[in-house]
Amino acid sequence: MPFELHPIGFVRSPIVDRASAPRQGDEGAPDAWIELTAPVLAAVEGVEVGDELIVITWLHEARRDVLKVHPRDDESRPLTGVFATRSSDRPNPLGLHRVTALELAQGQLKVGPLEAIDGTPVVDIKPVLRGPR
Amino acid sequence: MPFELHPIGFVRSPIVDRASAPRQGDEGAPDAWIELTAPVLAAVEGVEVGDELIVITWLHEARRDVLKVHPRDDESRPLTGVFATRSSDRPNPLGLHRVTALELAQGQLKVGPLEAIDGTPVVDIKPVLRGPR
Repeated sequence: MPFELHPIGFVRSPIVDRASAPRQGDEGAPDAWIELTAPVLAAVEGVEVGDELIVITWLHEARRDVLKVHPRDDESRPLTGVFATRSSDRPNPLGLHRVTALELAQGQLKVGPLEAIDGTPVVDIKPVLRGPR
Repeated sequence: MPFELHPIGFVRSPIVDRASAPRQGDEGAPDAWIELTAPVLAAVEGVEVGDELIVITWLHEARRDVLKVHPRDDESRPLTGVFATRSSDRPNPLGLHRVTALELAQGQLKVGPLEAIDGTPVVDIKPVLRGPR
């Protein structure tokens, strides 16, 4: 019984393929726009420039049948279960991206840094919690 | 075109309903077991006791048609878009839980603190990244 995720937006980024995408946002990723879908526009009201956010993406080019990888594709590192890594190849290819809200325009949210490629579906946006986490 | 998430495990917790669940793990949540499904057991190899993890759940009792809420159900706070809150009611009801790995047994992973209720499907487990994030 699968659960159905619907895109709430799509990434618009100068990064167009996985090969040129940084592995993590803090490894030189650019800023990017999230184009929100019309049905969820009300859900972004209250997000303000400067907010620290977690963007959750659906890594649509990832493989779902991969259970072990060499971390960071470094074959000198032993095969490791994907739940102990940030591999995008994993049973449910969700991406977590910690970003800053940079600009809000008509139905669009600029954030950065974001390593997801152009066209990546966004499935949720959450504030980073204050305090110990 | 929805994306299909498949459970990779289920939460086994003394918390049995939403009314008695803390809002966040650091607000008094208990430790809990994640019973992993057989097909993904290899993916947890490499997770070690003491690791800081992010567990992603599917909040199966949440409402998906809610776009604005009073944060923390406090009606003195203005209605706010759910993407600016950690409301479990949201278009794609994914839960993010930062936990510590406490014990690994046969196909089960004990973590804590975890505010998700008993029976909550788990859809992904990721390590917390070292460094600035």
